Amino acid sequence: MTKPIARALAALLATAIATPALSQHDAAALRDAALNDDIAWDITEGLTTEVGPRQAGTEAEARARDWGKARLESLGFRNVRIETCEMPVWTRGEESGSIIAPFPARLALTALGNSGATPAKGIEAEVAYFPTLADLEAAPAGSLTGKIAFVGHAMKRTQDGSSYGYFGRLRRNGPAVAAGKGAVGIVIRSIGTDYHRNPHTGGTVFPAGTKPIPAAALAIPDAENLERIFKRGKPVRMTLLLTPVRAEKGQSGNVVAEVPGSDPGAGIITIGGHLDSWDLATGAIDDASGLGITTAAAKRIMDAGQPRRTIRVVWFGAEEVGGCGGPDYFARRKDERHALTAESDFGADRVWRFAVKLPDAAKPVADRLAIALAPLGIGRNSEPAGGGADIAPLVRAGVPVIDLEQDGTRYFDVHHTPDDTLDKVDLEQLRQNVAAWTAMLAITANAPEELAPVNR
Amino acid sequence: MTKPIARALAALLATAIATPALSQHDAAALRDAALNDDIAWDITEGLTTEVGPRQAGTEAEARARDWGKARLESLGFRNVRIETCEMPVWTRGEESGSIIAPFPARLALTALGNSGATPAKGIEAEVAYFPTLADLEAAPAGSLTGKIAFVGHAMKRTQDGSSYGYFGRLRRNGPAVAAGKGAVGIVIRSIGTDYHRNPHTGGTVFPAGTKPIPAAALAIPDAENLERIFKRGKPVRMTLLLTPVRAEKGQSGNVVAEVPGSDPGAGIITIGGHLDSWDLATGAIDDASGLGITTAAAKRIMDAGQPRRTIRVVWFGAEEVGGCGGPDYFARRKDERHALTAESDFGADRVWRFAVKLPDAAKPVADRLAIALAPLGIGRNSEPAGGGADIAPLVRAGVPVIDLEQDGTRYFDVHHTPDDTLDKVDLEQLRQNVAAWTAMLAITANAPEELAPVNR
Repeated sequence: MTKPIARALAALLATAIATPALSQHDAAALRDAALNDDIAWDITEGLTTEVGPRQAGTEAEARARDWGKARLESLGFRNVRIETCEMPVWTRGEESGSIIAPFPARLALTALGNSGATPAKGIEAEVAYFPTLADLEAAPAGSLTGKIAFVGHAMKRTQDGSSYGYFGRLRRNGPAVAAGKGAVGIVIRSIGTDYHRNPHTGGTVFPAGTKPIPAAALAIPDAENLERIFKRGKPVRMTLLLTPVRAEKGQSGNVVAEVPGSDPGAGIITIGGHLDSWDLATGAIDDASGLGITTAAAKRIMDAGQPRRTIRVVWFGAEEVGGCGGPDYFARRKDERHALTAESDFGADRVWRFAVKLPDAAKPVADRLAIALAPLGIGRNSEPAGGGADIAPLVRAGVPVIDLEQDGTRYFDVHHTPDDTLDKVDLEQLRQNVAAWTAMLAITANAPEELAPVNR
Repeated sequence: MTKPIARALAALLATAIATPALSQHDAAALRDAALNDDIAWDITEGLTTEVGPRQAGTEAEARARDWGKARLESLGFRNVRIETCEMPVWTRGEESGSIIAPFPARLALTALGNSGATPAKGIEAEVAYFPTLADLEAAPAGSLTGKIAFVGHAMKRTQDGSSYGYFGRLRRNGPAVAAGKGAVGIVIRSIGTDYHRNPHTGGTVFPAGTKPIPAAALAIPDAENLERIFKRGKPVRMTLLLTPVRAEKGQSGNVVAEVPGSDPGAGIITIGGHLDSWDLATGAIDDASGLGITTAAAKRIMDAGQPRRTIRVVWFGAEEVGGCGGPDYFARRKDERHALTAESDFGADRVWRFAVKLPDAAKPVADRLAIALAPLGIGRNSEPAGGGADIAPLVRAGVPVIDLEQDGTRYFDVHHTPDDTLDKVDLEQLRQNVAAWTAMLAITANAPEELAPVNR
């Protein structure tokens, strides 16, 4: 190659790299068109109506994978495949409970994931009341022997959902703490912010060596009624019947689909949400809508012309139960070059803020993103992005991440309850999500800058 | 008696009659003091916490009567007594149902009062969908043989609750219509305006000669999901298990208490609400709050000094099931002189309007009432008052009636569901009710005008 030709080629390459395949103007046009999106709704409506509840490791989740594969193929995605993995499966049995003294009352309750089982006839015991997890933790060793613990909390609504982290510890850790002090069972005030007779399930954790005890969440009206009863100062007794079962070997899995990029060396952008739901509802906001949003955005980018980077959409399995979906994806893919990852798993209400974790060299990408998102009312979070549960292994490995943060004000009214149904999805807010994701993908999938890795 | 003395006496009497024992100014002061009332809340909180659900004819309703007698006595009411009556009692059994084809889904449902029972193993049948009661009524004779009917409706919120009358016909009459066309069961969209997985129960009516069929209400999210499934155009099959039982002889009853008046000839003012609730919840807004409001107002009048007319507070039994409470009161009391009646049975939200049905001679009473209620934001309804179910026999017999109309905008979100719990009662709105009732009693119990009868 002659020097002039080599120089000319180098200049051409430099230009090609420095110029996004899509202009900022193009990204804005794609964003605005997405405000009329129907794809996200169709996926959310279809999955909740035609599959319904799809707990991790059950045949319903397997049906959901088949449904997802067919839908992704019919939308024109490439390399659509199901990748299965194995894990233990906890499933709900009968569940009921009543206050029997001093004032009889049936309780609206539901077992926490990983709860132990009572005998088939249930248990009856005195109830010990703790206003908070800290009070339970302060109880003397052995002081709960033979008793059922009842623990409250004061979780309130927050836009960023941050109160779930703190108060959610009661669900995650409280049962093991009670077990360690001799309790025969525990009921907690549901980790939620509503006032309906629909208890909030969710996983709890019994560390190795701690025998699981029966653990249930009370609907918030029932928890407050029980607190009022305790204020009368009389001994409280209750019955509890929970018959969940645990199978050591079940199957979950991910559904993976791609929009192939033009530059294999530019890395993959992995986005998605989770396919499994809790068993109590059809999982509309947790997380059918996340699948709808991310898939619709990827489809809109695909239809606009081939992006520079491959966009991989993953419908992760077994998120709710901390199961094998996310880890399995990472185990299979960790040696591929990931340029970026992002996850939608906080409902269907509007994106109000975004955060990034990108290498310094990619700062212009974040600046272009800020300009593209501002017309949707989305401001910039000065804290770094953190991702979600499914992509956590990627993020820990140094893959850059962007958070399109959804408004969580009403999320914990519905989260993990029988009320997580399609009517909770607001179409206009869902479309705003699709527009935000479309703009984000338009900019990042076509960015000439190097995106990865960060802090590796 | 000499003529001059007789004339003087007559003039004195006329003055005594024409001057209310309490001035308009006194009524306003009592009204404003009631805005800090705690009595109504204490009754509502106490009954829901210490008794809880109290279905008509059950031992829970009997406990509620005992609780009510003790509470009314401790508040200082006179002539407190329980008056029992007999009636058939329908009680809920097991209840469950699922769509089994084309897309399996468990349904949140509850039996309607007076529903027939399925066999112990339930039934399975094809489902026939009707968007409205009119569509069901138009179905050809025999066309539902062997099928389960599913009927929707389009009830929306109204401030005056009037949509319940029209759309509620589906619950009251729909099951008998379906039975008449050969259906083996019926499920209806709950008569309600919320989006929670809490179905709305309530009584249905099978006329003599119509064998009751199993009849249930679906939670509204489940009804809409089923409608979406029908839109897919495939045959729908479902299972239904309902095992209610009916006993021909049960006991209900009223709790009656009085504030004795100074003028036995002036007639009795009978007010109250109903003590029974549906079994699914603690009946906070239906109707513990109605008992709290009316009892608190009567107590406040009692404490302000003896009124001219006796105020009788009745906690009626068996309202929800159309049982013996209201009729029994009338049967025992119809020969007493009733000057006025009024009932609180539409929740705990603010009074927004009032209506009267009074003799023409008592028009000044209504005018004084309008002046006393206006500062609470209460306007005047030009239509005549109608009363409620418990006092209907009195109203039909020509007893004057006043309606303090509550805002029903959110009432049918909760009505007859597991969600009718204390947290639905807003203290400030409850107090506004007490203030309105206190003003109404201050004026009517002391009015010098003749109040009864109307249109007799």
